[in-house]
Amino acid sequence: MPHIALPEEYPGIRSLFMYSPVTAQPLNDLVQTILHDPATSTLTPGERELIATYTSSLNHCKYCANTHGAIAKYQLGGNEQVVKDVMKDPSGADVSDKLKALLKIAAKVQEDGKKVSTGDIAFAKEQGATDKEIHDTVLIAAAFCMYNRYVDGLATWAPDDPAVYDAIGRQRATEGYHTKPFKVSSK
Amino acid sequence: MPHIALPEEYPGIRSLFMYSPVTAQPLNDLVQTILHDPATSTLTPGERELIATYTSSLNHCKYCANTHGAIAKYQLGGNEQVVKDVMKDPSGADVSDKLKALLKIAAKVQEDGKKVSTGDIAFAKEQGATDKEIHDTVLIAAAFCMYNRYVDGLATWAPDDPAVYDAIGRQRATEGYHTKPFKVSSK
Repeated sequence: MPHIALPEEYPGIRSLFMYSPVTAQPLNDLVQTILHDPATSTLTPGERELIATYTSSLNHCKYCANTHGAIAKYQLGGNEQVVKDVMKDPSGADVSDKLKALLKIAAKVQEDGKKVSTGDIAFAKEQGATDKEIHDTVLIAAAFCMYNRYVDGLATWAPDDPAVYDAIGRQRATEGYHTKPFKVSSK
Repeated sequence: MPHIALPEEYPGIRSLFMYSPVTAQPLNDLVQTILHDPATSTLTPGERELIATYTSSLNHCKYCANTHGAIAKYQLGGNEQVVKDVMKDPSGADVSDKLKALLKIAAKVQEDGKKVSTGDIAFAKEQGATDKEIHDTVLIAAAFCMYNRYVDGLATWAPDDPAVYDAIGRQRATEGYHTKPFKVSSK
């Protein structure tokens, strides 16, 4: 049960967006910018969703990991296996060496920003990552350390049914983050 | 030295905002909404800045803890002692029992959102905290787990001179977060 009175028909962060529209606006603008808008990054939306999914998985945030995992799948043309593999261990996943190096940086950020070393940065650059891509990776990982804590710190409701996440994933991959969520039948 | 090429004349998150204006916009809108706008919370800007300062201090983020500590001071009518006491240990600080209970929740969020217990929430409510104030506290603490990681994950420059933070604190407490930062002479 959520720690505060939230609208029951919306799960996860969507219940918080309905509860507090004034803070939902910048939170939604941020996620749209860092994950979805094609012009804001040279990382693809699929790569950016994988960074969000992996960070959420490291934070054990059920709602965010499942939601962004489903969005990543649709952004990657339906490739569910790569999403599962990244969550398990990026080093064994079928992604580029550049993305593997960036996911390593994301894991450091998830622990503590100060853990990112000059060696991690040099290695990512050797794999072809630009300054801007390193910036985007750090910001996405940092942002999901916020979203995950917001969702879990207020004990929002996370559905168990994979079909719910799949439907959210299909919607967000297509429409981005600014359209209204559909309601989910409560537990 | 920062991990990526950032404008040297701006410290901390300001160098990142200059580097990436497209992500600066929602990040600035968010901090303005959660910390500064008087209409968005029944917690005062001073109380909200203390939550941001305390979270940044727990994350050992030098730039954010010093900056928001200085803003908190100005929002609290120049009371520097209470800022120092909160950073050391909120239980011994001259703040309300409600704020002490909320700072306890912020500390749990800083570790992991899932650590916030029903007991922590019930205790905060006993001290007079509303659902909305608990929401705002969790979001502020979560947001600073992002800002701190963004600032430290890219190894931005943090000034040593307390006078720099004091000047930033005075400006932000007065003008909010949407005005341009002044430049700081480099190291």
